[in-house]
Amino acid sequence: MSKTRVLTGITTTGTPHLGNYVGAIRPAIEASKQDDVQSYYFLADYHAIVKARDPERIHQSTKEIAATWLAFGLDTDKACFYRQSDIPEIMELNWIISCLTAKGLMNRAHAYKAAVQLNDDEGSSDPDKGITMGLFGYPVLMAADILVLNAQKVPVGKDQIQHLEMTRDIAGRMNHHYKVGFNLPDAVVDVDSAVLSGLDGRKMSKSYDNTIPLFVPEKKLRKLIMKIKTNSLEPGEPKNPHSCTLFEIYSAFATEEEIQAKRAQYEAGAAWGELKQELFEYLNNHLKEPRAKYEELLNNPDYIEDILNKGAAKARAETTPLLEKIRHSIGIRPINV
Amino acid sequence: MSKTRVLTGITTTGTPHLGNYVGAIRPAIEASKQDDVQSYYFLADYHAIVKARDPERIHQSTKEIAATWLAFGLDTDKACFYRQSDIPEIMELNWIISCLTAKGLMNRAHAYKAAVQLNDDEGSSDPDKGITMGLFGYPVLMAADILVLNAQKVPVGKDQIQHLEMTRDIAGRMNHHYKVGFNLPDAVVDVDSAVLSGLDGRKMSKSYDNTIPLFVPEKKLRKLIMKIKTNSLEPGEPKNPHSCTLFEIYSAFATEEEIQAKRAQYEAGAAWGELKQELFEYLNNHLKEPRAKYEELLNNPDYIEDILNKGAAKARAETTPLLEKIRHSIGIRPINV
Repeated sequence: MSKTRVLTGITTTGTPHLGNYVGAIRPAIEASKQDDVQSYYFLADYHAIVKARDPERIHQSTKEIAATWLAFGLDTDKACFYRQSDIPEIMELNWIISCLTAKGLMNRAHAYKAAVQLNDDEGSSDPDKGITMGLFGYPVLMAADILVLNAQKVPVGKDQIQHLEMTRDIAGRMNHHYKVGFNLPDAVVDVDSAVLSGLDGRKMSKSYDNTIPLFVPEKKLRKLIMKIKTNSLEPGEPKNPHSCTLFEIYSAFATEEEIQAKRAQYEAGAAWGELKQELFEYLNNHLKEPRAKYEELLNNPDYIEDILNKGAAKARAETTPLLEKIRHSIGIRPINV
Repeated sequence: MSKTRVLTGITTTGTPHLGNYVGAIRPAIEASKQDDVQSYYFLADYHAIVKARDPERIHQSTKEIAATWLAFGLDTDKACFYRQSDIPEIMELNWIISCLTAKGLMNRAHAYKAAVQLNDDEGSSDPDKGITMGLFGYPVLMAADILVLNAQKVPVGKDQIQHLEMTRDIAGRMNHHYKVGFNLPDAVVDVDSAVLSGLDGRKMSKSYDNTIPLFVPEKKLRKLIMKIKTNSLEPGEPKNPHSCTLFEIYSAFATEEEIQAKRAQYEAGAAWGELKQELFEYLNNHLKEPRAKYEELLNNPDYIEDILNKGAAKARAETTPLLEKIRHSIGIRPINV
């Protein structure tokens, strides 16, 4: 039985937070344990530079994200865990496929259209104001990321479904013109996937500046949880768990039994301060061990680097022969062949 | 005294013809002999795929162009002669700089605008019909070709001046944001450079299908020269050398003295058939030796491949450390650095 090839990229611009963990990291690590799956996880540092111009931030984020995935037990003997920039074949394929990708396809990309709309809303005379070729062309790079490892499944958020359609379009053209035999990858959209709210009740996201980072010191974690927005119900008044960020976060970690017990506490009118303190203790218990591992990893960057280098070698064992084949089929071959 | 770095790319889509030789190959080989110049010549196979979809044609053209430059005595110990696709740093830099290149800059590229105009003229409802991301973005790749070797001078035709301005713009942004210290390259437009007319009297060009390939067998060369368009003046009637393709081609090879003598023949009313036969004999004499060398090279593809591999190693001795520096400055570094 051949394994299903599943690929996920993580853009290296932020510090992993609870929302990333629950929505992406935890399910990905779980999935990678399945015997019928071959997982590819990569640190998308060449996507990071599309928007991020702060080199220190990108470097730090790469380190933090790698350490986080390892701290939660990603088995890098089983999954292939690598850095995008270590795979030169991605950049090469990016150019090759761009020569068969209609510009019109990119004109219709949601992210690009939203940027143009924003310029229009702001009364700019230049619809492309502030838009770089990197931003315009990044769906092509994403296609290269996917095709270079012949991935079959790509877990994505709803906003990324279009990019997978573009990838299929590009793969189809390459197959038609050059008979390269790319898989046509499927987007896997988990509609049930947990989305956590942040400190202010909106979706937890770096762009809202409302996140709870996964691995802050205990004191800081407690402080952040105390800041989570609740309502003005007094101790003793029954509370509705279903519109409560505290309950949502708790539920994302707790067992069914624990969730039932917590719901009872809400209905019995537990005080917000008490519920916050308990959430802190509960979370802190869950994060203590990976946090210690994380700190240990950050203090041992040679080890992380070594893991990533091994991952790159594993990925390139596939991408190097693939690109050789593709180069050959487009006419780029040694003179003596 | 530091040498001036001069770079030229040759797109691998055609078979070298007399016009290429006189307008580009000969002056480039001459220039590379100067002691104050470091020349970089590359076979631009990744530019070829922007328009060419015939793998055999690209492969064959690469071989023919390499053999031609070598047959005319390019000194590859002095000049750096390589294949674009052997330098992965070009593809990597292409992406990096695209993240700082305004899309608006590409919107204004002459070649792109001409393609849009053509769609408009043909009544297409889609201004980008038939335009790929490769065609739209190739000025960025050209900038990467130039910057990756920190070239200072780039000999170009008038239609390429704008691309050099774009390269300077991109280099300036990279220097500003990341302090990478790129040279701002100059376009070198040789207004006196010889342009040969083709069989039909228009500029000799693959796109007009009016070329005389450099290295066809003697018989074929004679046949092509006999086909050159002249006028209907009879033998004995004086002829004007200055509007004559035969005279133009002869002059591109002959000495000043020989040109004077030929001019006298025209004025004395030599027959077209005689002038054509003499041009054939003269050209054939000039091309005999390089043609034999060319045939020998084509029969020895291992040798050409070896030369190109050595050229790539020489180029990469510069591009690899440069990209390492650039990667570092944008934040893409080993974890343990």
